[in-house]
Amino acid sequence: MSSSSPTPFAKLPAPPYYIVAFSSCRTDGDNGYGNMADAMVELASRQPGYLGVESARGDDGFGITNSYWADEESIKAWKAVVSHAAAQRLGRERWYEEYQVRIARVERAYGFDR
Amino acid sequence: MSSSSPTPFAKLPAPPYYIVAFSSCRTDGDNGYGNMADAMVELASRQPGYLGVESARGDDGFGITNSYWADEESIKAWKAVVSHAAAQRLGRERWYEEYQVRIARVERAYGFDR
Repeated sequence: MSSSSPTPFAKLPAPPYYIVAFSSCRTDGDNGYGNMADAMVELASRQPGYLGVESARGDDGFGITNSYWADEESIKAWKAVVSHAAAQRLGRERWYEEYQVRIARVERAYGFDR
Repeated sequence: MSSSSPTPFAKLPAPPYYIVAFSSCRTDGDNGYGNMADAMVELASRQPGYLGVESARGDDGFGITNSYWADEESIKAWKAVVSHAAAQRLGRERWYEEYQVRIARVERAYGFDR
């Protein structure tokens, strides 16, 4: 990664906190996905309890977005935000062949930085 | 994704189970990474308590691998496997600029399939 890029790693507090692990396979074509994805990250980042997000997608269309939240209540509140609910509907109608979501409580964490 | 490809989604039991969320930024060049990564997935899949793995990496070198385990004991046992420990050391010496690991207990899950 270029040293001039912003880091793709979320800066997180010490556990406990929550992770929403979102795995997805995209349909072909953009169909407005890119703009909506950017808008949803911006909107999520202003939600109470939002801690950060990390995302990667390969050339095969399979991607993982792990978002981090203070608690379960924050996750449920974000899921119910009106424009997010609209994006979820378009996700099922247009953008995703399949997605799987797992909600988990982070109990420990560690890392390495060169 | 081609319909002839094996699915990149892990087939998981109902919660609770555990997720190891591994976010990483690769160094330039392969340096034996691809072969070792394949070998580690093969080795992990034979560990007690292994449930599945999902992985995505973008062109910027940032990737996420979420692996799924029955319990904390399985995760700790896998971390201690000798050849895995050697791969972890090479990861720090050669393959990764940075990585972050979060271990979490999956409490609920849902999905969509077209």
